[in-house]
Amino acid sequence: MENNTFSEIADKLLAADTVLIFTHVLMDGDALGSSAALCEALRNEGKTAYVLLEDKIPDDMQFLDRGFCTYDQDIIAEPDVCICLDAGDTGRFEKRADKFRTGKTLICVDHHATSEPFCDLNHIDPGEAATAEMVYKLLRAGNMEITGEIAGSIFAGITTDTGNFQYSNTTKQSHEITAALYDAGMDFRGVSIELYECIKPEKIRLQAMIMEAAEFYADGKLVISRVSQDMLKACSCRMEDSEGTVGNLRSIKGVEVAVILKENYNDLIKATMRSKSSADVAAIAAKHEGGGHIRAAGCTIHDTLENAEKIIREDALEELGYK
Amino acid sequence: MENNTFSEIADKLLAADTVLIFTHVLMDGDALGSSAALCEALRNEGKTAYVLLEDKIPDDMQFLDRGFCTYDQDIIAEPDVCICLDAGDTGRFEKRADKFRTGKTLICVDHHATSEPFCDLNHIDPGEAATAEMVYKLLRAGNMEITGEIAGSIFAGITTDTGNFQYSNTTKQSHEITAALYDAGMDFRGVSIELYECIKPEKIRLQAMIMEAAEFYADGKLVISRVSQDMLKACSCRMEDSEGTVGNLRSIKGVEVAVILKENYNDLIKATMRSKSSADVAAIAAKHEGGGHIRAAGCTIHDTLENAEKIIREDALEELGYK
Repeated sequence: MENNTFSEIADKLLAADTVLIFTHVLMDGDALGSSAALCEALRNEGKTAYVLLEDKIPDDMQFLDRGFCTYDQDIIAEPDVCICLDAGDTGRFEKRADKFRTGKTLICVDHHATSEPFCDLNHIDPGEAATAEMVYKLLRAGNMEITGEIAGSIFAGITTDTGNFQYSNTTKQSHEITAALYDAGMDFRGVSIELYECIKPEKIRLQAMIMEAAEFYADGKLVISRVSQDMLKACSCRMEDSEGTVGNLRSIKGVEVAVILKENYNDLIKATMRSKSSADVAAIAAKHEGGGHIRAAGCTIHDTLENAEKIIREDALEELGYK
Repeated sequence: MENNTFSEIADKLLAADTVLIFTHVLMDGDALGSSAALCEALRNEGKTAYVLLEDKIPDDMQFLDRGFCTYDQDIIAEPDVCICLDAGDTGRFEKRADKFRTGKTLICVDHHATSEPFCDLNHIDPGEAATAEMVYKLLRAGNMEITGEIAGSIFAGITTDTGNFQYSNTTKQSHEITAALYDAGMDFRGVSIELYECIKPEKIRLQAMIMEAAEFYADGKLVISRVSQDMLKACSCRMEDSEGTVGNLRSIKGVEVAVILKENYNDLIKATMRSKSSADVAAIAAKHEGGGHIRAAGCTIHDTLENAEKIIREDALEELGYK
């Protein structure tokens, strides 16, 4: 199926009175940044617009919600448009999937390689570094004003999804769009402080524990660590406080694949995986009905932490050509 | 004194046969990145060019030296041009200062606020985020080709000095120049892996120790930690392995000023300081004949680690309005 143009999607949004925005569970900066940016732009156009969530906004992203987010599925009865951002199938927002389908027009804007078109209008492009860049182009296509606040939300999406312009998905366009955001008067430094420089001391303790628990395999090419409920208790942290630590593991010299196994509760282990330059962690995730990108993927294993560790280790060794 | 234009400086460089490039001691990515970029461009123009150093290149920057760097002060007897990059006075390269003065023409290109013009040609602009951006403009002004390798060296300078485009010195121009570097065919991901994803496990242990040794003052607005020779021994690290950790301290919620005191040897303590959004750490450094920017500065205290800690703590408390 061909992608709809951003103009077609913008026209449909601008013709609507009510728009409900969806994004994936375990939201990241791109998920919430793009949603907040679109919501604010639509409200500035006089629309009734909300971002409908089902899980908690992580501490470091709460600044992005300037009254946009709601957990109330009845906030708009039958929206003119339901649009999902940074999420390419309803499995990424399961508890809101039925609500999504009540939209008179359904739209999907996403950059995940695993997404298949399933809406009335779709623009899915794995070549885009961040959904926030797609939202930027969508707003431009619809001649919607990009205020300083909207620019900041878009910047939050770009900078988090590109690992501050260091990950392999970063493109020339990421920098071109960011340069344009400066003209909109965004407070990039304020965004950066909120995202990266408001870390709780407890989180730093947790990160140190995760680094200590790391074990190396495959001549140092594979590193696996864990976050158990006991570790969280020991440093008064929640699971979300372990976000980002897998990137620290990957940054160790010689490491190609980094994995963190998160014990959400007994027998429900989430594996977060990153690769540096050659291995395909999306392939490992796919074996366990997970998804993501070649360099960043995740999946869920219904087993004990110990067994999950063995399963993922074997898969990763195979991906690295060690089996 | 008015700045010379980049065209004037490029003309002088292109008229020379031999060029010796200088940068500051304790080099960072911008110091070596700009030097390597200029050296490579001049060699491609048929010049005899070297980067003259006096201290060791840190591990994570060695990829930038593709045969450019030397410690041999006699490598060019009386250079047509001696140019110092990212260093605004000879005190920043004391052991090479006499050699610098043997240049028939002396040039300075720098972005440090404390720099005063002292050469035949000078371009000093504290509004520039990185000296590497100035070198980019210099090469463009001289119509010198920017190859993929040169682009990578410039990118290394920009991304390190802007804290991956997050520090307050970052500008629209930083992104515009980086976007242009993509056209030159740079391997930005390769540069990024060399700079940030080849961290020794020992360094990660040292960082954990530095975080543990942190002490908080002024209602959490001031954090001070240390790197003693004993700590280095305990994790088989060198002082250079503590680079970057002060940024981690600053990233703690509520912290405005972060300081790391580095015991280089007994009674020679280097203070590395960062501020988040309001305090002027260059003012603290200036009290001890140090220098830098408002948000990033350093100085040397000739005293014990304990006394240096007291001195800097008092200065920082004053800067924060706590005295």
